[in-house]
Amino acid sequence: MFSRETYITRRRELLRKLSGEKGIALFVGNADSPAQYRDNCYKWRQDSNWLYFFGIDEPQFAATIDLESGEEIIFADDFGIDDIIWMGPMPSVQSLAEGVGVAKTEPAAKLSWYISDALIKGRPVHFLPASRYYNAQRLSSMLGFAPEELFSAGKAGCPRASLPLVKAVVEMRLVKSPEEIAAIDAACVLGQKMHTVARKGIRLGRVEQEIVGEMEGVTLAEGWGVSFATILTQHGEIFHCHSHEAVIEPGRLMVIDAGAESNEHYASDFTRTYPTGGKYTSRQRDIYQIVYECHELAFSLTKPGVAYRDVHLAAARHMLVRLGELGLVHGDPDEMVAAGIAGLFMPHGLGHNMGLDVHDMEDLGENLVGYDPDQTRSTQLGLGSLRMARRLQPGNVVTDEPGIYFIPDLIELWKKEGTGTGMVNFDKLKEYYDFGGIRLEDDVLVTDDGARRLGGERLPASPDEIEDAMKND
Amino acid sequence: MFSRETYITRRRELLRKLSGEKGIALFVGNADSPAQYRDNCYKWRQDSNWLYFFGIDEPQFAATIDLESGEEIIFADDFGIDDIIWMGPMPSVQSLAEGVGVAKTEPAAKLSWYISDALIKGRPVHFLPASRYYNAQRLSSMLGFAPEELFSAGKAGCPRASLPLVKAVVEMRLVKSPEEIAAIDAACVLGQKMHTVARKGIRLGRVEQEIVGEMEGVTLAEGWGVSFATILTQHGEIFHCHSHEAVIEPGRLMVIDAGAESNEHYASDFTRTYPTGGKYTSRQRDIYQIVYECHELAFSLTKPGVAYRDVHLAAARHMLVRLGELGLVHGDPDEMVAAGIAGLFMPHGLGHNMGLDVHDMEDLGENLVGYDPDQTRSTQLGLGSLRMARRLQPGNVVTDEPGIYFIPDLIELWKKEGTGTGMVNFDKLKEYYDFGGIRLEDDVLVTDDGARRLGGERLPASPDEIEDAMKND
Repeated sequence: MFSRETYITRRRELLRKLSGEKGIALFVGNADSPAQYRDNCYKWRQDSNWLYFFGIDEPQFAATIDLESGEEIIFADDFGIDDIIWMGPMPSVQSLAEGVGVAKTEPAAKLSWYISDALIKGRPVHFLPASRYYNAQRLSSMLGFAPEELFSAGKAGCPRASLPLVKAVVEMRLVKSPEEIAAIDAACVLGQKMHTVARKGIRLGRVEQEIVGEMEGVTLAEGWGVSFATILTQHGEIFHCHSHEAVIEPGRLMVIDAGAESNEHYASDFTRTYPTGGKYTSRQRDIYQIVYECHELAFSLTKPGVAYRDVHLAAARHMLVRLGELGLVHGDPDEMVAAGIAGLFMPHGLGHNMGLDVHDMEDLGENLVGYDPDQTRSTQLGLGSLRMARRLQPGNVVTDEPGIYFIPDLIELWKKEGTGTGMVNFDKLKEYYDFGGIRLEDDVLVTDDGARRLGGERLPASPDEIEDAMKND
Repeated sequence: MFSRETYITRRRELLRKLSGEKGIALFVGNADSPAQYRDNCYKWRQDSNWLYFFGIDEPQFAATIDLESGEEIIFADDFGIDDIIWMGPMPSVQSLAEGVGVAKTEPAAKLSWYISDALIKGRPVHFLPASRYYNAQRLSSMLGFAPEELFSAGKAGCPRASLPLVKAVVEMRLVKSPEEIAAIDAACVLGQKMHTVARKGIRLGRVEQEIVGEMEGVTLAEGWGVSFATILTQHGEIFHCHSHEAVIEPGRLMVIDAGAESNEHYASDFTRTYPTGGKYTSRQRDIYQIVYECHELAFSLTKPGVAYRDVHLAAARHMLVRLGELGLVHGDPDEMVAAGIAGLFMPHGLGHNMGLDVHDMEDLGENLVGYDPDQTRSTQLGLGSLRMARRLQPGNVVTDEPGIYFIPDLIELWKKEGTGTGMVNFDKLKEYYDFGGIRLEDDVLVTDDGARRLGGERLPASPDEIEDAMKND
């Protein structure tokens, strides 16, 4: 949690950005989320937009800002004696509100009345898309839209939510302040610690889950936990593989994509790909080297004014040139890029924004967050999944995470449908069906004149660095 | 996951119990639950009732059983190529259904149609209370009740849900089968391992969170994670204290109430209270000894035919007798028990059912789960919080968790309101305002002729055992 002044300044800036708008901005914090039943909840996590503007890290809070008068109200209930037995003496709502510079508080039940009153008077109520079902229902009961209409409709965002409010929030959260950068650096240091523990845990014969437990224990000991469900798999070609029952086998590639959330709720996100036995085969090394070069190239191009979409395309071009040298594709590199051939090998984007959320602001609508108004999102496999395409600004925090995967089902599909015919060497690709996948990811801050990798000392990244580190583990 | 036969037998037994009923029983499995936004979810956890009858540990499944014809249908969608890229090759819905003995499957979208069709024909649709907001909304859209009406209304249960179905499920899940007992024993062994790691981590000057991370890492390495949010606090008088920022101070009592969920989704739940410096003060030892005696007394009384309510009351009586010897209360023990004086020191119940859920079946309504039809739940502080009051049967799994706490706000409230006047020595209690609290908990199986503590070797429990263990850590 930052200082009182930080939250006051952010809300003042928001008000300034919305100075032409009428009505009320409504912010709804999270409630606890049931895991098994309503009294056995998942670990508490506050809504990120709430954290950004109101900071209070407690459930069942809401707030309004009157865009015309500037009046701010926090709506929440104080605790009674039953709560005190179960949860201990708690600060009053009034004192929590004062801690973030809000003078006026009202009981939670007053919020519906306040919103109804505004609606009756014909005043617009600006709100952000819901990120959880409970909040969708809460907004639904106040605003009269069906709950399912209140989520982001995927990439396009949520048509019911307030576009001016969403755009203002995105503009602000896209550029991280120095105190946010310090918080992300700290989350990255913790994420790197997780990864080091994981790397040292790789030994043939162990079950993957043992390593997951060790690395997640580190994040819980020093932070809030993982910033997303850990990916740790010998099948890197499966992107979101959350099953960890496999025994570590010789000759495989172990992809570990994991990050920490700090106690301040900032995220980190790193990926490394290790040879399970400590040494890459020559085929693994060839592919790894390409991924490494793409990653380094992307980092070298990352600077203010450059569109991250172009960085993605430059990495894709380099990947195709180098895969051509291995005989897996052939043709003019620019034509292959235009035809979207890179998507067969890297069906995801080069990176995404990162901050309070690991995919920062994904609840607000991917295109509004990651695309400049004059950019149109591609529908190609790979480029179409790029979450951050914008022209970079100092203070942006993005991930740089190229990868190469051999996904038999996808390759067979392209072959059957004729996609990539004349450019993709489908026969040669057969030899790679048991390869798996490789990804390499660091978190990057855009600076005034370039970029800086976030966190402490960089995790081993090149094939030699990885093998050297594993030799000494 | 158990054998195909297990799930077939359970559903057959359910059908038998509901043989007088008409219509359809509807079961809705869980969907992923968003943490930050819809694509960044909390760790997957299936609904326990779904697990019990249908076993399939994947999101977005539902099923129906026709109570008249016996026809069973599983509703879910197979994966497309997009899913395969992100999640890898997945077994078909048909093969998952066959794995639990269900022959017929339909696409997910067919479920609404199927339920509407039944409702139009005037056939009753039996369903269980929702345990999550998403499922409440799903049921709401099919059945026409408001989502908030579809949860258990606290102790009383959910008036919209089917009472015959709830009762039949409770009867079945209350009595654990040998394979379930083996699964709970395994979860208890893991829970004990967590606690041993935690105990060895207690050192003055460390931050509590470091120990939480270490112990939770163990559960993630070998199991599904924690069975509930870990309580680890030097303020045991605060029951659900989930903040772990405190530094470990000398002279305090550290309450650790934590359990593991095994990969098979069975829970364990243990509590131990340690002297932070390794040795209890004589005042701490006096109170600990009383808690220990209450715990042992309760265990000795646990056997078939005895109401767990009476075990609670016997422990409460013993507690008051012994607190009387310390001069903290005075009067006839039976009169003090009747007046609910024990609730001032132990404002919670002696224990609860445990199985797939740590508070087993809490989503089905506490009173329906924990009270025999002829038992009325007390409104007294303490006894009123007792979740398991039933006459015990072989195969019941319950926790035995007495505790003594000194809660200044609560003591002051009783004093002010005159509760316990003439029985409670409020002056003497002032000396205990900085004491904290002590709780001791093991998990217990009711056997044919008594009870057995679940798990492996018992964790140190008596004051001497605890001090000896800490000496050797």
